[in-house]
Amino acid sequence: MKLATLKGGRDGRLAVVSDDLTRAADAGGVAATMQAAMDDWANAAPSLESLAAALDAGEAESFPFEPSECAAILPRAYQWVDGSAYLSHVELVRTARGAEMPKNLYDDPLMYQGASDSMIGPRDDIELADEAWGIDMEAEVFVILDDVPMGVTRQAAASHVKLVGILNDVSLRNLIPAELGKGFGFLQGKPTTAFSPVVATPESLGAAWDGTKMTLDMEVSLNGAPLGRPNAGTDLYFDVPTLIAHAAKSRRLAAGTILGTGTISNHDRSVGSACLAEVRVIETIEHGAPRTPFMRFGDRVRIDMRNADGNSVFGAIDQRVVKYDGPA
Amino acid sequence: MKLATLKGGRDGRLAVVSDDLTRAADAGGVAATMQAAMDDWANAAPSLESLAAALDAGEAESFPFEPSECAAILPRAYQWVDGSAYLSHVELVRTARGAEMPKNLYDDPLMYQGASDSMIGPRDDIELADEAWGIDMEAEVFVILDDVPMGVTRQAAASHVKLVGILNDVSLRNLIPAELGKGFGFLQGKPTTAFSPVVATPESLGAAWDGTKMTLDMEVSLNGAPLGRPNAGTDLYFDVPTLIAHAAKSRRLAAGTILGTGTISNHDRSVGSACLAEVRVIETIEHGAPRTPFMRFGDRVRIDMRNADGNSVFGAIDQRVVKYDGPA
Repeated sequence: MKLATLKGGRDGRLAVVSDDLTRAADAGGVAATMQAAMDDWANAAPSLESLAAALDAGEAESFPFEPSECAAILPRAYQWVDGSAYLSHVELVRTARGAEMPKNLYDDPLMYQGASDSMIGPRDDIELADEAWGIDMEAEVFVILDDVPMGVTRQAAASHVKLVGILNDVSLRNLIPAELGKGFGFLQGKPTTAFSPVVATPESLGAAWDGTKMTLDMEVSLNGAPLGRPNAGTDLYFDVPTLIAHAAKSRRLAAGTILGTGTISNHDRSVGSACLAEVRVIETIEHGAPRTPFMRFGDRVRIDMRNADGNSVFGAIDQRVVKYDGPA
Repeated sequence: MKLATLKGGRDGRLAVVSDDLTRAADAGGVAATMQAAMDDWANAAPSLESLAAALDAGEAESFPFEPSECAAILPRAYQWVDGSAYLSHVELVRTARGAEMPKNLYDDPLMYQGASDSMIGPRDDIELADEAWGIDMEAEVFVILDDVPMGVTRQAAASHVKLVGILNDVSLRNLIPAELGKGFGFLQGKPTTAFSPVVATPESLGAAWDGTKMTLDMEVSLNGAPLGRPNAGTDLYFDVPTLIAHAAKSRRLAAGTILGTGTISNHDRSVGSACLAEVRVIETIEHGAPRTPFMRFGDRVRIDMRNADGNSVFGAIDQRVVKYDGPA
């Protein structure tokens, strides 16, 4: 089953989307919004599955699915926590900003509490005031959880993964070093996050979801030129259940929590990168200085994940960076 | 006008509370929940004010107000950002954990993105699995904002403060050094936050709210013994509008955002402290080692703020620390 949130109001409208991403059906009869579905997932899921089956069979009232009409799957979420579980990325980026490597990098996941109050859709512009902030993408896999009790074990955590998707964790590289240097984590350096057109249930993904992680390539391109296609299942040091248990150590996680595994990064450099920061570090190592600039106004970033048949699983994120001229 | 959220469901039920905190009236006819009121504040506020006026005049259908029946004012919020704007606290606590002082401490506010998905009420237990985590309180002032545009100026920010209250930013001191050492900010070290029984509009607070901060003492006690009563208006280095503009530099803030100014701390040590971490650092400076332990299971923390007449403004937070035995 695939779900999307169509633009409209603060929380959008929930829709079921056909497996091939061509048709959608209004799901308001089951739950008005994605959050409402998550609040009562045990009851909502079977009804949504029935609607999805009818849609795929051509038996539901439907309309053409248009990714540009999508909001973020949760236009405002109660929680967004993001790991950095591909250690190849951590190693490269920390080297780049001259930051120390965490002492317990291989025992204790890196994870930050992100802003979740105003997420954007897959085709929405990335509006920012200043190119000098160092505008970068990060292509990631995320999951949406139902209610997770405090102290959940890794083993019990897997069953709380209800939906899977991909996102663009926009990062402002030139604001981050000073911000992280203060010790309180990201605030200005991680602005609004953008989400794939649809999310899918783990069961619907077949072998692409192995129970703890996605196993497909993440394809990232900038202005039409490929940047990288690292594999999401390769070199993930802390899997999704491990990250859930980490987040829930001292508190419960409310239904609708979005959890990410961090920008995809493989030790095999031949696959390229899922963010510009890595490209620039590798260039610095090879040539003494970065050659690729961060994103500029007018640049387009495209992020997609395709299955073995070459079909997009979640639909593509395709965004333009534009200048924000300040409050009206 | 004073507002409370009474327990019931994931988001509770909105109530108007009399100025003397003795009576409450159901506000469901205006807005079912606090978040719904924030989503349409311009329309909701006048109707809520009318109801509050009728309640204070004894002309509204009402019932006794009972703080133990209160949930957090926003039992789940879309955003919680917390400054650390009393630099006396920053200086003491960073000294204690051997952390470097931020280089631009006096130019650039310290602020972290907190977990907002499951806030608790003023009389709810603080449930934690392990005393060894170093359980501490932090008594703070917070505000609730309506929609704030990206790039808001400090001058324009003040008008977005719609409600004011106090909170207990529970902190796990022994988890924090390793967590902050990783550079990604607080995750496990700042568990569930607890909120005062009511919030009040800035206009209703008179001189106690000077347009940029509260000016009353924050009274904190542990097991009935006073711990401190630092003044919220003294030694606040970055005021509320400055903190709002900081948070909104690279993104908008959605209606219902909760913003805190950090644990109250005065340079005048004779007023005591609003958290145990400070007490312990001062003891270490004076005696070579801390004498006061962190909170233990069974301990009670009480946090209150009274006006010139000696009456509680927001009602008291009064919580017990209890052992959490793990998921069922």
